[in-house]
Amino acid sequence: MSTVYDALSQRKSHGESTVIRVIGWDIGGANVKAARLLFTGGRAESGAAIRRYFELWNNARDLRRLLQEIYSDLGRADAMVLTMTGELCDAFNDRAEGIAHIIDAARGAAQGIPLYVINLDGLLIRLDGGEVDLLTLAPTNWIAEALVLATRQPDCLLVDIGSTTTDLIPIVGRKIAARGKRDIERLVHGELIYTGVLRTPVTAITSRIPLRGTICPISAEHFAVSADVYVTLGRLQPEDYTCATPDGHEKTRQGALRRLARVVCEDSKHLTVGELHAMAAYIAERQIQQITEGMFQVLSRFENGHCLPVAPVGVGAFLGETCAKRLGLAICDPPVLTDSGSLSLSPCAAAATLLGEAISHP
Amino acid sequence: MSTVYDALSQRKSHGESTVIRVIGWDIGGANVKAARLLFTGGRAESGAAIRRYFELWNNARDLRRLLQEIYSDLGRADAMVLTMTGELCDAFNDRAEGIAHIIDAARGAAQGIPLYVINLDGLLIRLDGGEVDLLTLAPTNWIAEALVLATRQPDCLLVDIGSTTTDLIPIVGRKIAARGKRDIERLVHGELIYTGVLRTPVTAITSRIPLRGTICPISAEHFAVSADVYVTLGRLQPEDYTCATPDGHEKTRQGALRRLARVVCEDSKHLTVGELHAMAAYIAERQIQQITEGMFQVLSRFENGHCLPVAPVGVGAFLGETCAKRLGLAICDPPVLTDSGSLSLSPCAAAATLLGEAISHP
Repeated sequence: MSTVYDALSQRKSHGESTVIRVIGWDIGGANVKAARLLFTGGRAESGAAIRRYFELWNNARDLRRLLQEIYSDLGRADAMVLTMTGELCDAFNDRAEGIAHIIDAARGAAQGIPLYVINLDGLLIRLDGGEVDLLTLAPTNWIAEALVLATRQPDCLLVDIGSTTTDLIPIVGRKIAARGKRDIERLVHGELIYTGVLRTPVTAITSRIPLRGTICPISAEHFAVSADVYVTLGRLQPEDYTCATPDGHEKTRQGALRRLARVVCEDSKHLTVGELHAMAAYIAERQIQQITEGMFQVLSRFENGHCLPVAPVGVGAFLGETCAKRLGLAICDPPVLTDSGSLSLSPCAAAATLLGEAISHP
Repeated sequence: MSTVYDALSQRKSHGESTVIRVIGWDIGGANVKAARLLFTGGRAESGAAIRRYFELWNNARDLRRLLQEIYSDLGRADAMVLTMTGELCDAFNDRAEGIAHIIDAARGAAQGIPLYVINLDGLLIRLDGGEVDLLTLAPTNWIAEALVLATRQPDCLLVDIGSTTTDLIPIVGRKIAARGKRDIERLVHGELIYTGVLRTPVTAITSRIPLRGTICPISAEHFAVSADVYVTLGRLQPEDYTCATPDGHEKTRQGALRRLARVVCEDSKHLTVGELHAMAAYIAERQIQQITEGMFQVLSRFENGHCLPVAPVGVGAFLGETCAKRLGLAICDPPVLTDSGSLSLSPCAAAATLLGEAISHP
């Protein structure tokens, strides 16, 4: 094991400046995301990102092949850096096994390329076959993201609302001020809210829904997810619905309405569009409350908590803005990662940024 | 018993037009409110209103004297109309006893003045000693208010947030579209939310509060009320704090902070102002959720529920606006009751309006 500050052997020359190509990975349980950044003369010039829905719990053996495909689509890199959360998924006996599996898949997907990880202390660690405590290497995607945000926004609350989970990370004086590192700690401290705008089952958001003037208890089946709610409300488009539908059918508004109706054990033709829309609005409201509940908890640690601006990130950034307004908090401008402005903040883009900067300015 | 359409014996002449002076009463458990309107030529010209904090449960015998004082302050009337909710208070063995007591007090306070009530069907009934089913005469303050609003706003949701309770009354096609009449029915249908911006104990709003990054369970004592929350947040001024303070001390922000600190079993000097402010913001958030929960339930009955405008009324109208925005609903202009624009909508002003109009246009 060595750190990034060891000299990197391979660099490409581009005119007078050195061009460095880095890829950052964010390997979750349901999504693999990667960003490739081009650094020239120490500056991130441009970048591109890829997101693939991938049910790691069903296909752990295929992870390496998927990473190879993504690597091939993104283009060659001089170095790569891994962040992950997928180690939690129940394809693995424990998290250490998951972490090892993900590292092996990444190493196999791009052989010969220097491979780094970000650890729980936010340090870049080169994986070169030496001993490493696997449990210090995950979950780290939020750390990469918060580290990069902290260089651009010295005091703020990072609100990253993803497909499945939400990270609430306070940044104070350019430093991550989170209390938790492992997920179990982050849950306790309100920094990890297990709710997101695509994959979250409606049953994890509420157990009852107002309907025709009554309060209707709902089924405990995997009939509809949060993506159905936001497609119904027009806050997400069917093409944003990047996870599987519970019924295997179409991601259109019609499909979403049918799935929502089943939550109250009914066919959509027996409910009006207005009724289904009202159900979706109520579920969204309850999800907003899940997130603001965590925000209140996290911000209660800071004397200036009621005036920290919010950096809304992720596929659910629109909901992050709503939550910020609820608490009367300002919204930060989106952080700029590259000169071309082509990449928005995400854990994989942040990881690539950290690696590229470390290599460029050793 | 006779209706208002019986000719009224006493009218005052004012130039060529007939001047009619009416008083509407709203006798609650903790507040007595009255409005006096001057009708000239059938139009409400001007009016004035009085509100007195009065703990009916402690002072039922003094009600008559209080009503006499208010009557004397407002000035003589040609007729009066009663609405009430105070019949519920536990000074009375049952509601019929409470209704009878309130009627007797009103009759005694202004002897010889024709006395009307509004019944659960929204009809003006003259109390002239005949038989009447007392239980049809309360609670009626929300009915008077909704009837008047319906003549000015044909489709809307009345959101009257008072000191202690909130009424959510849908108005559709100029008609009251509420499902409940008695309080127990109104609670079930979400039309009566037992929460308000002054007297509601914090313990009735939440059982835990985020504090210093933890979730702190709270004491089950009558240490602080919603007025303390809104004075702390600057949404209400100490002079709006018209109910008693739980500790009997001052209604200032300092006093409110001290009471809030005690909710988490602490002295205010051991908490920062930021911490106490954050506690208040959280309690307000939870109260907003109590109200929006009812709004979702009530609106779920209407296909156009997501586009009904809201008429926010009451001392907590500011919170009604917040709730409306949460649901993406428009806000109605405040209804105009008199030519001089001097009175805002309230149950007592509405009751006076109904009586004045009925007498003027028999």
